[in-house]
Amino acid sequence: MTRPSLAPTTIRPDQVGDPRFFTGTGPHPLAVIAAAAGLTLPARAADRAFTGVAPLHEAGPDQVSFLDNPRYAEGLATTRAGAVVLTQALASRLPSTAIALATPNPYLAWARICALFFPPPAVTPGIHPSAVIHPTADLAPGVEIGPLAVIGAHAILGAEVRIGPHAVIGPGVVIGAGADIGAHVSLSHARLGQRVRLLPGVRIGQDGFGFAPDGQGGYVSMPQLGRVIIHDDVEIGANVTIDRGSMRDTVIGPGTRIDNLVQVGHNVRLGRGCVLVAQCGISGSTTLGDHVQVAGQAGLTGHLTIGSRARIGAQAGVMENVPEGVSIVGSPAQPVREFFQHVMALRRLTARELRRGRQSTAARPDTNPEN
Amino acid sequence: MTRPSLAPTTIRPDQVGDPRFFTGTGPHPLAVIAAAAGLTLPARAADRAFTGVAPLHEAGPDQVSFLDNPRYAEGLATTRAGAVVLTQALASRLPSTAIALATPNPYLAWARICALFFPPPAVTPGIHPSAVIHPTADLAPGVEIGPLAVIGAHAILGAEVRIGPHAVIGPGVVIGAGADIGAHVSLSHARLGQRVRLLPGVRIGQDGFGFAPDGQGGYVSMPQLGRVIIHDDVEIGANVTIDRGSMRDTVIGPGTRIDNLVQVGHNVRLGRGCVLVAQCGISGSTTLGDHVQVAGQAGLTGHLTIGSRARIGAQAGVMENVPEGVSIVGSPAQPVREFFQHVMALRRLTARELRRGRQSTAARPDTNPEN
Amino acid sequence: MTRPSLAPTTIRPDQVGDPRFFTGTGPHPLAVIAAAAGLTLPARAADRAFTGVAPLHEAGPDQVSFLDNPRYAEGLATTRAGAVVLTQALASRLPSTAIALATPNPYLAWARICALFFPPPAVTPGIHPSAVIHPTADLAPGVEIGPLAVIGAHAILGAEVRIGPHAVIGPGVVIGAGADIGAHVSLSHARLGQRVRLLPGVRIGQDGFGFAPDGQGGYVSMPQLGRVIIHDDVEIGANVTIDRGSMRDTVIGPGTRIDNLVQVGHNVRLGRGCVLVAQCGISGSTTLGDHVQVAGQAGLTGHLTIGSRARIGAQAGVMENVPEGVSIVGSPAQPVREFFQHVMALRRLTARELRRGRQSTAARPDTNPEN
Repeated sequence: MTRPSLAPTTIRPDQVGDPRFFTGTGPHPLAVIAAAAGLTLPARAADRAFTGVAPLHEAGPDQVSFLDNPRYAEGLATTRAGAVVLTQALASRLPSTAIALATPNPYLAWARICALFFPPPAVTPGIHPSAVIHPTADLAPGVEIGPLAVIGAHAILGAEVRIGPHAVIGPGVVIGAGADIGAHVSLSHARLGQRVRLLPGVRIGQDGFGFAPDGQGGYVSMPQLGRVIIHDDVEIGANVTIDRGSMRDTVIGPGTRIDNLVQVGHNVRLGRGCVLVAQCGISGSTTLGDHVQVAGQAGLTGHLTIGSRARIGAQAGVMENVPEGVSIVGSPAQPVREFFQHVMALRRLTARELRRGRQSTAARPDTNPEN
Repeated sequence: MTRPSLAPTTIRPDQVGDPRFFTGTGPHPLAVIAAAAGLTLPARAADRAFTGVAPLHEAGPDQVSFLDNPRYAEGLATTRAGAVVLTQALASRLPSTAIALATPNPYLAWARICALFFPPPAVTPGIHPSAVIHPTADLAPGVEIGPLAVIGAHAILGAEVRIGPHAVIGPGVVIGAGADIGAHVSLSHARLGQRVRLLPGVRIGQDGFGFAPDGQGGYVSMPQLGRVIIHDDVEIGANVTIDRGSMRDTVIGPGTRIDNLVQVGHNVRLGRGCVLVAQCGISGSTTLGDHVQVAGQAGLTGHLTIGSRARIGAQAGVMENVPEGVSIVGSPAQPVREFFQHVMALRRLTARELRRGRQSTAARPDTNPEN
Repeated sequence: MTRPSLAPTTIRPDQVGDPRFFTGTGPHPLAVIAAAAGLTLPARAADRAFTGVAPLHEAGPDQVSFLDNPRYAEGLATTRAGAVVLTQALASRLPSTAIALATPNPYLAWARICALFFPPPAVTPGIHPSAVIHPTADLAPGVEIGPLAVIGAHAILGAEVRIGPHAVIGPGVVIGAGADIGAHVSLSHARLGQRVRLLPGVRIGQDGFGFAPDGQGGYVSMPQLGRVIIHDDVEIGANVTIDRGSMRDTVIGPGTRIDNLVQVGHNVRLGRGCVLVAQCGISGSTTLGDHVQVAGQAGLTGHLTIGSRARIGAQAGVMENVPEGVSIVGSPAQPVREFFQHVMALRRLTARELRRGRQSTAARPDTNPEN
């Protein structure tokens, strides 16, 4: 049993796909790579094989790399990468040693190429002997249940569902095919569609925050009688909390992406393809249309309606409805243009105030009638 | 083994008390319903039976419904509900098919009626065989210990305590009768009163954030030698963190309600009946009086004193003490009236600046001596 | 089996080192105490023994106490403590019954004295029989594995590592000697140095938040192929989330301290000795130098560079790089001096606007030509 030194210097820095943690595939011929990314195959070298992916400044002749931010375009001239995914506009800046894989959307192509070399780990069917599974739970063939997971009475798991270690699936919960439930997730009073991913520590379906003052300084809890409905292809980050509805359901629309530590209150409805960035919070009964983006640490009060494709800025405090397609920022939130007008106006006014303050300070002795 | 389709269209929307997840009671005669809610029994139909509860626009003749927001009062005219909880002022707007259950506090009555039809699940005494219970732990009769829970040495659990799956109760922890500890909770260095509810993922009793620079660029941890004291009837939301005290205790007063993802630092003291909304944070050694309300994402710095019945607005940044009964908002926080005066003044000043800017831009060519 | 009353009145308030939860040492002679704290031994009473530590107003003749905040210096005159750690400047205010333990850094000395009386609990080597340990995991002698912990394939644990109950250590994870992993932690795709402490519910190594629009309203996940590297002596608070890198690693520098509920995005790099206070968030690919302080609820957008010793104020919203040593605050963030100039200028301008508004309101009838 060898004991590795753990001194930082022994850690190879910035290792893409460290084999301790990732299982790669390959090499792959360029034709396969282009097909995976939906790219037109370049004229030359369809059979040339590539072994992996790497950042532009680290990639070697057997690796594919990527650039989509023109700010870093000077890195193209010196790259040793064998092929680079980029826009047509930048392709001419590549050295002749690199094959250009040009596309209007390099980031999308790059995601697909990376997934070709590093596909998500396949489900390994089987139930760990330490898992606690209620005899009335209904498990489709091919499910993978991790160590010490708990599956409640009458829960239903679709085909190829993976349940991570220590996840707790409450009674009656329904999970669609292909879902991937992370370690330590708790899930109750919920129906999940297909291919839903929950990262570790997600809390779904617990009581919403509702109670009535009892007139004597205490509170009476409002029973929370709704559910959480999570549609297909939703992904939810670590330690996120989504409460079940009180009278209606809490609903997360198809394809929506939620980052870590986000709060979603009871009765909230998110449309299709919404993006909620880390630490934002949506208060109870607020409804978001489709493809709404909420940036980090923003907060929305309750009972609002946010139109489709609206964009809420980081740390915004939203207290009013937002029309479709409008971008807002600030607390209280305003349209982006107005917000920055206010910021700039305040800076100018402050400068003027400071000048005025200095003048009156300088003038003060002279205006003293005692002098 | 039938496999349900999980397509969204097969989910009955907004089902109150979906029997997959909730066990209802009833039917109940109106006399029983009125008594549960503390209402005067209406003159007619004391024996008429009701089967459940539903929102105003969905309720049928056998269901009780509810309205407390006058904004939605137009829904009264067309409701098919058999009885509706509302204020006396709105009762006359009900159709003759609906019995008015009038009360000055409809929300409180509604909470009690919902709890009559859907009482919280009873404790099922027993210890799951997979739980790990230290032989010195002291368990009262009637406790329910879920799968894979861990109970430490010398912990004490009162009568009818429920411990959820995967909860970890540290050594010496004391939990009063009737407490309900959710899945994945960790609890250490703490004493809990009666009927305390902790939702999944709550972290109580871990080290507070305290350390001293060692003069050489590092830090020495300050031992955290206090506890967390949680009084009767407190409810705490999912993934909340409450650190134990350093020299004194961290204290949560009776009946206080804490929403999801809230942070409570070491030595904090919350009084009776405080309300802390999601994602707010209370820094170390700050003290709140009774019935203080802290809205979502607000932050309080350390060593403050917040008077009873103060109200802290959403996203407020509180850096000074707050007197009793005062409402503040903004970052840095100010009294509500001043805050909105500033917001409006800034909007007017910005508009004036913009006009001035446009004029001087228009004027600029003329003032150019080169012209 | 006696059942304690759990009524609040039976709880002895503010008990330092309650023996239910803490195991103290002592009594210790003053010579030992002074040596532990790196203090010069006072001239008298080197052999006098002390039994423990307590706050200034509670300490008795056998206890050591402490003061570092001059605001509370009036407590010195009446303290019954046998010895007090404080600065030389305050020592003369002690009564003759108290021995002064004078030092330029009382808080550091106090931390060390408290740790002498209450050392962190020693590791108890052994593997709980309920833990699930993969046969290929590599465990050094002396590790302590708690109940129901899960250790994945090829994971490596150094000497005297403690793994708390219900912690999940993913495949391949490397943990340096002396690390202390709390209850319910999940850890994947990560290498940890020595003496790292993770409090309960920490999430490390899950997927970062990265995806490309697929042009049809959906998103394609970007494979996250980096790791999380955590250097020696890092401490991380409850329910913190740290995502693994996408192409490069996420790195937490030596000695860094992170409070509860903090979010650290993929590819973030924190230098040596940084301090991140509760609920702050660092967006993807942002880099912090050494000894940067980020206060509570502050947010940093992505791809920023924050210089060493910069200080980010509570609730600040940082959208631009910050030079070394600069203190900023506000949203959007500005240097502290400018921020408070703006706050004060706005207050003055608002007051002027309000006066103007009152005058024009008063004047309005007179200016009405109809009069």
